[in-house]
Amino acid sequence: MKVGVIGLGYWGPNVVRNFLSTPGVEKVYCCDIDEKRLKFAKSRFPSVEVTTDTEFILKSPEIDAVAIVTPVATHYPLAKKALENGKHVLVEKPMTSSVREAEELIETSGKRNLVLMVDHTFIFTGAVRKIKELIEADEIGDIYYFDSVRVNLGLFQHDVNVIWDLATHDVSIMNYVISSKPISVAAFGAAHYNGIEDIAYITVNFDNGTIGHFHVNWLAPVKVRRILIGGTKKMIVYDDTEPSEKVKVYDKGVIATTQEGIHRVLISYRTGDMYAPKLDDTEALSLVCKNFVESIENGTKPITDGISGLEVVRILEAAEKSIKNEGKLIKI
Amino acid sequence: MKVGVIGLGYWGPNVVRNFLSTPGVEKVYCCDIDEKRLKFAKSRFPSVEVTTDTEFILKSPEIDAVAIVTPVATHYPLAKKALENGKHVLVEKPMTSSVREAEELIETSGKRNLVLMVDHTFIFTGAVRKIKELIEADEIGDIYYFDSVRVNLGLFQHDVNVIWDLATHDVSIMNYVISSKPISVAAFGAAHYNGIEDIAYITVNFDNGTIGHFHVNWLAPVKVRRILIGGTKKMIVYDDTEPSEKVKVYDKGVIATTQEGIHRVLISYRTGDMYAPKLDDTEALSLVCKNFVESIENGTKPITDGISGLEVVRILEAAEKSIKNEGKLIKI
Amino acid sequence: MKVGVIGLGYWGPNVVRNFLSTPGVEKVYCCDIDEKRLKFAKSRFPSVEVTTDTEFILKSPEIDAVAIVTPVATHYPLAKKALENGKHVLVEKPMTSSVREAEELIETSGKRNLVLMVDHTFIFTGAVRKIKELIEADEIGDIYYFDSVRVNLGLFQHDVNVIWDLATHDVSIMNYVISSKPISVAAFGAAHYNGIEDIAYITVNFDNGTIGHFHVNWLAPVKVRRILIGGTKKMIVYDDTEPSEKVKVYDKGVIATTQEGIHRVLISYRTGDMYAPKLDDTEALSLVCKNFVESIENGTKPITDGISGLEVVRILEAAEKSIKNEGKLIKI
Amino acid sequence: MKVGVIGLGYWGPNVVRNFLSTPGVEKVYCCDIDEKRLKFAKSRFPSVEVTTDTEFILKSPEIDAVAIVTPVATHYPLAKKALENGKHVLVEKPMTSSVREAEELIETSGKRNLVLMVDHTFIFTGAVRKIKELIEADEIGDIYYFDSVRVNLGLFQHDVNVIWDLATHDVSIMNYVISSKPISVAAFGAAHYNGIEDIAYITVNFDNGTIGHFHVNWLAPVKVRRILIGGTKKMIVYDDTEPSEKVKVYDKGVIATTQEGIHRVLISYRTGDMYAPKLDDTEALSLVCKNFVESIENGTKPITDGISGLEVVRILEAAEKSIKNEGKLIKI
Repeated sequence: MKVGVIGLGYWGPNVVRNFLSTPGVEKVYCCDIDEKRLKFAKSRFPSVEVTTDTEFILKSPEIDAVAIVTPVATHYPLAKKALENGKHVLVEKPMTSSVREAEELIETSGKRNLVLMVDHTFIFTGAVRKIKELIEADEIGDIYYFDSVRVNLGLFQHDVNVIWDLATHDVSIMNYVISSKPISVAAFGAAHYNGIEDIAYITVNFDNGTIGHFHVNWLAPVKVRRILIGGTKKMIVYDDTEPSEKVKVYDKGVIATTQEGIHRVLISYRTGDMYAPKLDDTEALSLVCKNFVESIENGTKPITDGISGLEVVRILEAAEKSIKNEGKLIKI
Repeated sequence: MKVGVIGLGYWGPNVVRNFLSTPGVEKVYCCDIDEKRLKFAKSRFPSVEVTTDTEFILKSPEIDAVAIVTPVATHYPLAKKALENGKHVLVEKPMTSSVREAEELIETSGKRNLVLMVDHTFIFTGAVRKIKELIEADEIGDIYYFDSVRVNLGLFQHDVNVIWDLATHDVSIMNYVISSKPISVAAFGAAHYNGIEDIAYITVNFDNGTIGHFHVNWLAPVKVRRILIGGTKKMIVYDDTEPSEKVKVYDKGVIATTQEGIHRVLISYRTGDMYAPKLDDTEALSLVCKNFVESIENGTKPITDGISGLEVVRILEAAEKSIKNEGKLIKI
Repeated sequence: MKVGVIGLGYWGPNVVRNFLSTPGVEKVYCCDIDEKRLKFAKSRFPSVEVTTDTEFILKSPEIDAVAIVTPVATHYPLAKKALENGKHVLVEKPMTSSVREAEELIETSGKRNLVLMVDHTFIFTGAVRKIKELIEADEIGDIYYFDSVRVNLGLFQHDVNVIWDLATHDVSIMNYVISSKPISVAAFGAAHYNGIEDIAYITVNFDNGTIGHFHVNWLAPVKVRRILIGGTKKMIVYDDTEPSEKVKVYDKGVIATTQEGIHRVLISYRTGDMYAPKLDDTEALSLVCKNFVESIENGTKPITDGISGLEVVRILEAAEKSIKNEGKLIKI
Repeated sequence: MKVGVIGLGYWGPNVVRNFLSTPGVEKVYCCDIDEKRLKFAKSRFPSVEVTTDTEFILKSPEIDAVAIVTPVATHYPLAKKALENGKHVLVEKPMTSSVREAEELIETSGKRNLVLMVDHTFIFTGAVRKIKELIEADEIGDIYYFDSVRVNLGLFQHDVNVIWDLATHDVSIMNYVISSKPISVAAFGAAHYNGIEDIAYITVNFDNGTIGHFHVNWLAPVKVRRILIGGTKKMIVYDDTEPSEKVKVYDKGVIATTQEGIHRVLISYRTGDMYAPKLDDTEALSLVCKNFVESIENGTKPITDGISGLEVVRILEAAEKSIKNEGKLIKI
């Protein structure tokens, strides 16, 4: 299989590096409009072909699959054209700028039986896979809440606000590990430079009462990457800034007892062991590339397929709409 | 001066202990309907008088001032009667269950020239006083945001939800250190037992664009007490779980530059020293008692007067209303 | 049973409070030469008898058992006299100032069939009991090392150096959890004020090759209380400054394999889950008092008996001797 | 200037990369006996020349300076030959396996007026340079102690023990920041595999009473890299595992006062602000290369010259000798 990678900014070279070591990939083509980036790619990865000609990547019959690692606004047109030319497509997160665009890509890929995958890298980390596994094994119980904080100083993006930049990660993780259905979104934000929100708070309501919440912030003095997941049985803290023991599972909870003749429920607390499961530390992006290639080879659905890309965009779009409407609740 | 303390639950004995060592206080009367609590108080503080007769405390001419340390719903009727009987009043936080009640107490105390104070203890901590001092000295610059997280497992309250229990603290701190005016509130919450919210997210919008946000949660596996304050000049992290260095001031920020002919603002980052100022570690509640007694003696306004109690209640009431209305924005 | 407590400084009142709630204790007598401390004790614990007459406590037939909570130098003469007068004795740590004194107390108590116990409070904490349990169940394997750091700023003692003040705790913990036999001690220290060592490093060698090490320091800017225990199977970190999860058990280790024809052992690493067992949080001192009273009632040996007190003193005495001799190795 | 780098294991490629961007370096030659490592180097750094011929690097008139990044035992013979052939030499740490070897290299380089430098990389970090600056500016006062802990699980070395592997770093830092003179060394260690010590405790005594101490350990479940420096004026904590604020300066100390007629010194404590100075985050190794090249160009002494390499080896050698002699104090 031959793969073309469009966009060699910050993330693109990582995608190239991983495709180069993915079984089944014969050749990697690198494309960027900036010659300097191509030169860098060539010196770093002598075996790749480089070109500034995007159309070549999108159309050449030599190329089977395309990875799109460009600014968000260009995801849709590039992916659309690639799919129309019969290429399988891996799109950088967030998949598109709008629900409508995402739906169109899904439709196009479906019609042509092509793989459409979104690079929600975090889904492939050992940490998130372990959390998914724990929830599926019913170790955590029913989920009360999914609370995420992802804040630091910078890096301001020029084309998208902090929601599309940072919340994408956490929303994709939430959607992956929680099986119930989000039904509405409300959000507040503030923009201090260029009119692009650099702080936002997003609330997501689920059909079964689970509550999701996201704090994303480019103006924070400290780096925080922490997700709390509370369940009826156990609770999880996932701290991605920890060098090891990123996921901690607390055997803590509430015991509610009703006594005859007393209306009110009596609450007591349960505190048991905490443990930090060993996590697989395979590079997540290598698993993304592997899953993409295998999906193409086997005609199977990738883990982060177009639908999962769409569901994330749906929440981000609703959040942005809510911010523009003073926190109005947006049904999704 | 003779002070009566009504309510000897968890917090009442601390109030008694501190009044006993406040200059100007001759005698402390303790009142509770539970004889066991009185017995405990008497053994702990042999010099106090004890009584189960609330009316005595509220009316006796022997008593100059009353501290009300009872469940929230009783704050208003007790404080009202005490004021009407010419007593100065210190009310536990939150001052009342509603804005209307708070306004009435303010009016009553005003008419009779009596001191009405609310025990927002955190305002008197070395940490919060230092933060106030830094902001007033313009070390922090204009405030972008005030972000607070106060979560842990339990203790569920039976009479009030997590907002009235926990957010009171952080809202009182925010109102104290930020001088601009809150104009609207929106909130989401979830109740899992007894129909009382145990998780809530509150957003407060200010007239000048500052954004306030509060995460309070009785169902969290870890204890977090952290406030982030971002300013144009510096940023503050106040972590109350730290045994020392609770307040850290980061010389970090964004530098926005406009270049001629370029529409978009260029963003760069500034990172300098961090420092943790030495904090006064006088027990905050002793300063509350002292401020109350001195306000009575000197006819001055206490730091946390009725108005500041009202402004907190205003935000909590709006938050609760918003929760009941699916996150509707409530103007205040 | 009637218990006399001699010494009402910092720790004495805690001992009194715990004896007052220990089953089997009818009456507690408090003794101090400072009338102010007695007055304080009487107001805090109205049911106690107070006296400045040490001889009364040591001799009165009314009193069955004596707790000695005085400066170290006085432990021996007071305990000696109490034992000679037929009292059971609980001595504050360290048991005595010298091995000789400790041996004498053991001999005296043995002859008269009296209980002699030392208050090594840490041994009774949930954390240390759990560590002991894990090691006895062979979860940790053979012990490579026991490494302890106990440092902070102050509090300088006037009568004993940092070894007798701080290392006592850690040496008692080491002796309790490790079953092999210490054979030699070496130590270095430095004294900056009053000629009393405020920093010390102690190494303890065991017969089976286990190495123990202690860093104690009154001149450190941060408070550290951390013990690392490395075993062939698992490893323990016990951090007493953590509010919860004080004991963490790491499933980490080394795998050594020998290949035919290769002389050198190949080393690889094993990393599995970490877990923090739930710890019993009963106040340790209440268990000390209970163990003392039950030992008297049942004629059994207390957990921290005279021998365990002696074994700690043996190491402290050797460490001090080594310091005075430029780190000379002292056999014990 | 043309530089030859011998040894392309873990560290060598970093040295190559940094020389390639050091002003004044025209050409870099890479040498390793392993062809695979050369191939890797060539693909990573297309501009370098590669060779398996060590003699070429050591003798060719094309080459002005040689960096020796090989196992410790080979440092001396390679450096010796390079110097004898008129090359300036940068040796990886520790400089040699023995004091005698180090002295010989210093002598040889001195006779021929060649630069001899040791790559004590830590000396060039922003953290250590800041600590040096603070001590030189007398912000810290007289130094009570220098306490270092450098522990983690693995990586076991096959040729040197944990002292030569890990303690080298901390001893070089201590020697750099403390100006007084070490006079004696004592150490204990334990070896569990291959007879090579994997745990060691080293004490270093200084002429002015300062005490240095090092805990190095390959068998620890957690990674600790922490240096405490206590001074009469302030105290420093340098935690190299922190992503930012690695150096914290505590305005803490002891105040000793003597009162007339009282023999003993009264001790009180001073606690002020803590601050974390901004640190230069230039890659330390780039500054090593720069300092080496500039020393050659200007005929000046490098910061980490042969003498500083020797002083570190002197302490390591003494420590090893002490371990072999049951902790005997070794004068240096």
